[in-house]
Amino acid sequence: MEENFDYTLRTDLALEAQEMNVKDEPGSSDGDGVEVHENEKNDIKITYVTVDEAGAERIGKKAGHYVTLESLAIRKQDHQLQVNLSKTLSGQLRKLMNECGIKEMDRGLIVGLGNANVTPDALGPLVTEEIYVTTHLFELHPETVSDGYRPVSAFTPGVMGVTGIETSDMVHGIIEQTKPDFVLVIDALASRSINRINATIQLSDTGIHPGSGVGNKRKEISRETYGIPVISIGVPTVVDAVTITSDAIDYVLKHFGREWREKDRPSNALSPAMNPFERKTLTAEDHPNEEQSKAVMGMFGQLEEAEKKQLIKEVLTPLGHNLMVTPKEVDSFIQDMAHVIAKGINGALHPGIEDGEAQSYFK
Amino acid sequence: MEENFDYTLRTDLALEAQEMNVKDEPGSSDGDGVEVHENEKNDIKITYVTVDEAGAERIGKKAGHYVTLESLAIRKQDHQLQVNLSKTLSGQLRKLMNECGIKEMDRGLIVGLGNANVTPDALGPLVTEEIYVTTHLFELHPETVSDGYRPVSAFTPGVMGVTGIETSDMVHGIIEQTKPDFVLVIDALASRSINRINATIQLSDTGIHPGSGVGNKRKEISRETYGIPVISIGVPTVVDAVTITSDAIDYVLKHFGREWREKDRPSNALSPAMNPFERKTLTAEDHPNEEQSKAVMGMFGQLEEAEKKQLIKEVLTPLGHNLMVTPKEVDSFIQDMAHVIAKGINGALHPGIEDGEAQSYFK
Amino acid sequence: MEENFDYTLRTDLALEAQEMNVKDEPGSSDGDGVEVHENEKNDIKITYVTVDEAGAERIGKKAGHYVTLESLAIRKQDHQLQVNLSKTLSGQLRKLMNECGIKEMDRGLIVGLGNANVTPDALGPLVTEEIYVTTHLFELHPETVSDGYRPVSAFTPGVMGVTGIETSDMVHGIIEQTKPDFVLVIDALASRSINRINATIQLSDTGIHPGSGVGNKRKEISRETYGIPVISIGVPTVVDAVTITSDAIDYVLKHFGREWREKDRPSNALSPAMNPFERKTLTAEDHPNEEQSKAVMGMFGQLEEAEKKQLIKEVLTPLGHNLMVTPKEVDSFIQDMAHVIAKGINGALHPGIEDGEAQSYFK
Amino acid sequence: MEENFDYTLRTDLALEAQEMNVKDEPGSSDGDGVEVHENEKNDIKITYVTVDEAGAERIGKKAGHYVTLESLAIRKQDHQLQVNLSKTLSGQLRKLMNECGIKEMDRGLIVGLGNANVTPDALGPLVTEEIYVTTHLFELHPETVSDGYRPVSAFTPGVMGVTGIETSDMVHGIIEQTKPDFVLVIDALASRSINRINATIQLSDTGIHPGSGVGNKRKEISRETYGIPVISIGVPTVVDAVTITSDAIDYVLKHFGREWREKDRPSNALSPAMNPFERKTLTAEDHPNEEQSKAVMGMFGQLEEAEKKQLIKEVLTPLGHNLMVTPKEVDSFIQDMAHVIAKGINGALHPGIEDGEAQSYFK
Repeated sequence: MEENFDYTLRTDLALEAQEMNVKDEPGSSDGDGVEVHENEKNDIKITYVTVDEAGAERIGKKAGHYVTLESLAIRKQDHQLQVNLSKTLSGQLRKLMNECGIKEMDRGLIVGLGNANVTPDALGPLVTEEIYVTTHLFELHPETVSDGYRPVSAFTPGVMGVTGIETSDMVHGIIEQTKPDFVLVIDALASRSINRINATIQLSDTGIHPGSGVGNKRKEISRETYGIPVISIGVPTVVDAVTITSDAIDYVLKHFGREWREKDRPSNALSPAMNPFERKTLTAEDHPNEEQSKAVMGMFGQLEEAEKKQLIKEVLTPLGHNLMVTPKEVDSFIQDMAHVIAKGINGALHPGIEDGEAQSYFK
Repeated sequence: MEENFDYTLRTDLALEAQEMNVKDEPGSSDGDGVEVHENEKNDIKITYVTVDEAGAERIGKKAGHYVTLESLAIRKQDHQLQVNLSKTLSGQLRKLMNECGIKEMDRGLIVGLGNANVTPDALGPLVTEEIYVTTHLFELHPETVSDGYRPVSAFTPGVMGVTGIETSDMVHGIIEQTKPDFVLVIDALASRSINRINATIQLSDTGIHPGSGVGNKRKEISRETYGIPVISIGVPTVVDAVTITSDAIDYVLKHFGREWREKDRPSNALSPAMNPFERKTLTAEDHPNEEQSKAVMGMFGQLEEAEKKQLIKEVLTPLGHNLMVTPKEVDSFIQDMAHVIAKGINGALHPGIEDGEAQSYFK
Repeated sequence: MEENFDYTLRTDLALEAQEMNVKDEPGSSDGDGVEVHENEKNDIKITYVTVDEAGAERIGKKAGHYVTLESLAIRKQDHQLQVNLSKTLSGQLRKLMNECGIKEMDRGLIVGLGNANVTPDALGPLVTEEIYVTTHLFELHPETVSDGYRPVSAFTPGVMGVTGIETSDMVHGIIEQTKPDFVLVIDALASRSINRINATIQLSDTGIHPGSGVGNKRKEISRETYGIPVISIGVPTVVDAVTITSDAIDYVLKHFGREWREKDRPSNALSPAMNPFERKTLTAEDHPNEEQSKAVMGMFGQLEEAEKKQLIKEVLTPLGHNLMVTPKEVDSFIQDMAHVIAKGINGALHPGIEDGEAQSYFK
Repeated sequence: MEENFDYTLRTDLALEAQEMNVKDEPGSSDGDGVEVHENEKNDIKITYVTVDEAGAERIGKKAGHYVTLESLAIRKQDHQLQVNLSKTLSGQLRKLMNECGIKEMDRGLIVGLGNANVTPDALGPLVTEEIYVTTHLFELHPETVSDGYRPVSAFTPGVMGVTGIETSDMVHGIIEQTKPDFVLVIDALASRSINRINATIQLSDTGIHPGSGVGNKRKEISRETYGIPVISIGVPTVVDAVTITSDAIDYVLKHFGREWREKDRPSNALSPAMNPFERKTLTAEDHPNEEQSKAVMGMFGQLEEAEKKQLIKEVLTPLGHNLMVTPKEVDSFIQDMAHVIAKGINGALHPGIEDGEAQSYFK
């Protein structure tokens, strides 16, 4: 998770960036640089977002492929759904690896970003602990490695506030020393929507800018800087309290506007808010139009978006810091999510692991 | 922290209950059953709230004494302030113990409520770990105990979801077996206000209703049920996301109303929101009057409080559970708070500890 | 694990007590009060030791049934063996529960003894965390409980050095408050033999004397004191450094004696030491006779057992405390053992759990 | 701690290597390449061992300076002694840094070797967590850094079994990326003597061979390979069970021999074993001469050292692995030792820290 970040102005999720900025319908490609496809299976919704250079500029996300898995497996503490989610993640990750040109025995370096001592930021380190690490076996005892395993290393660079070292410098040092064929990075993210917390997994091939290196090309870990594929896996684990409130107010406006127009609709129709897969964050279309706002919310409804945010921020941040919050159940959510992701990665990296399934299931 | 609780309808803090319900000015006693006194020293604000039977019914808090310490020592990670807060807590706790008739060598049982595996609920167990426990020494090796120490025991009953046992039954069993002269309970609380999270310590002599025993007289741990003083120390560590939003909207209404009326005031006057000790939660006086609401917020402003809450709740709880959130930095906040409280308790229970100060400071 | 204990004079394992004191052959019952039966399946050796009053006095173990499982599943980190060990434990525990008259829906209280902050003593608390706890569901939401589950509660009393309260008082308080139909206690033990560390599980129906209550009938938790069955599960996790050395010296004497007599035997015959299931601790028969000792070890060989122990103890305990040691890998050994035991207990208590196997396997 | 190591043939401590191999009296320099000086203050014994090339070959330790602090502060859980030990460590470390030519504002990289999940091997990671890290402040916010602080970074490379990467490759990568002026490495060691466990701190300027790189010059982290000073701080936390026993037997032989010769001495004379600072491991002089052995221990006494070791090893390692053990109290010993060392390092690196003493003492 990036520290000292202006979370109020952006999201780490391409899906949210796209929803906030464009009117793309799923399945469409309107020539403005962002293509979106969706499908859903086993209660897991998969969205593919492809961004080209034009789209990158418009939505503020780097060009490349983004795959988003949405599932309530963790929040419902549903073990069977979690098994399904691991398997779906394995499949999607293997697909993305193929698209990046990664071959069967290519050597992988897994990097778990984040701070192991800050629970909502500990996802990377926790996943790393469960990765099947094999590089040393290939080097020292190659005869002991079964077929179906590739050389995999894993490390956790820590965060700059604890090490004093730029995270990207740490990663650079290890890449240069160990020369992997590809890099896989795991990190906790910030979301705009509390519905996405611990309910979304984003895969991407666009590389990362760990820590304060944002905007500094030299600090980027990407195919451009290293000539090797860099795949990232991110999960939103925190949300800005300002965003919660801002979205709530917008939704209230919208809600009133709708009621106003649709008085004849049966009142027990499922509210969009009830279905997190329908609603997610508010999209451009959801925002109230001027007429609605005036009637419903008086002066407040007529404020500019930025003014409303500023006002709400003033209310919520008397202590002067970013107020990122996480659900009370953060400990078990993060542990379960780490377990799901580690199993998904292990399955994608080591095709032979299906033989060892019973074994891996035991722990 | 009480599980399965309807957090949206109440607060665990008497201070908030009083602010929400009455117009008592500090220092006043208007005969309606709630008396409030305040003072501030060393950046720590102390509020004494005394509730009699009439007041109890009105604000929904049991009759008795409530002492609230407010300090940003933990959130600012200011070590010197934390030392001061420990000492202030020691002093206030000793005072309350005296008022309850607890004598110098009376035997104390410290009970750390909460779930050690859920960080925002782990305050009680963490404090318990740092208590200077001596009862066994008095019983087995009395010659080894220095002057200035009293017999103290400590235990953590866990939570019903983990033990299968009502917390109050656990506490009853231990009290009946060990016959302490007084009980001191530590617990994490819910607050209505995000400003109070990890910034407030509430002492009280009114006893507790641990777990689902709320409203069940038999389950209460109090002087009435045991004939011994029961003092509780609580710290709000979570806040309901619904409440955050609801307060924000109310504040926005208020803010607009004020601007509307006070256009001539210098615009750079410190907003109440900027000073957490001024503002705290919104009081009755802060709520917008009808005229303000109409002009500012249109239809929304005219909703009943309960209707607004319901609307906001609908927006925020699509998953159907209470959405309690805690700051991202919960791990270090809880550890530091546990350390402050344990030092405060140790100092209050064992006057001789000042001699061992250097020693206790070392770890 | 009992604190402040004279580990050098005894063992917590009936199997070792019996080996040290008697010449019973497996399968025999020579009328002196100790009956021993063995069998082995799936690399797990099971020994049944039944002690009557006469035997109890002779070997210093309470009369009753002792079942010992021996397996290298944990130390070899063999997951399949660990699954087998869990299942075998389930079967043996269910058998012992039947023999104690425990019925299908009888309410069980699981007690995890030991100190969660001292890794080799954390077995009880770790097992307790993984127990399927259901009593509160039966009481509050009986409609949610599937068939095949019984009411089960679980708690960890902690240790006297941390709570100030006698462990037995804690357990008494909870039993009296919750009135279970039977009690199941888990504890870490001391062994005489380093081979047994984390390689042996002992079941028994003889009750326990937690903490310093040893020898104090009032402190005992047993069928005699409560009128309900009390089953204990213990695993040796520490060994006395004096015992390691003492056994080594005895073994060396024995080894020389054997070589002396059996010069013609092929020198590559498997040494007893190579097979932990053969050797375990030294039995009476293994101790060198006087003639051997004289020839082999000179003066030292002729010392009384107690003199030798005293001498070795003097060498090893310059700091004046009991020198209990544990393998360097204690963290993973204890975690794995806790997992094996918790799965074994869950399976024995809840016959319905086999339906939920996939689920339980996931984590 | 080095993995897969033949602990039985060597020790990580120069002091022990020297005692095992030479007859150097403290204060002497007999021209054979090892110089030894001792002094004692505040219950802390300091031994300076200087090894030149000739000595290096003889005792199997690299040429350079070794400073050993011996104290029972941790094992006696004596807080005041622990404060003293931290201060003594600060002083000795500062002295060694001066001798290595490290200047006041030179940039330091602290490397915590070991496995955070294996308690006796977690010393390095635990120390690293408490280091005052400042490099990022110097780079990003130099105006916030007080006088008396130098740039310090810290990281934990993990162990090869977990990362798949050679520890030395990890350290190389970070050094090349961050270009520190000196490196300070913390590691857990193996000792020959159970008396030294958690009671000895060794400083040295000879560099390290982390992990399996032993004997591979390319893997060494030292002044020779980097041109910058490399100082190591090591604490023995485990001991080989074979060594415990072997030393015990030797001591028994010696003890008998002494009694035999010195029958007239008062029998209550303090046994060397009673004073760990006198005795430590057995030195060449302590080993029984042939005549003693024959009389006292018969055939066993006449075995070669290597034969005895082999015999004892056979007794103790039926499971086929190195049997490294650690005291039962390993958790608190390692935590306290990490705290002492981190405070010692912080004080040595940052002279300004004395001003912040109260603050640092608070936690």
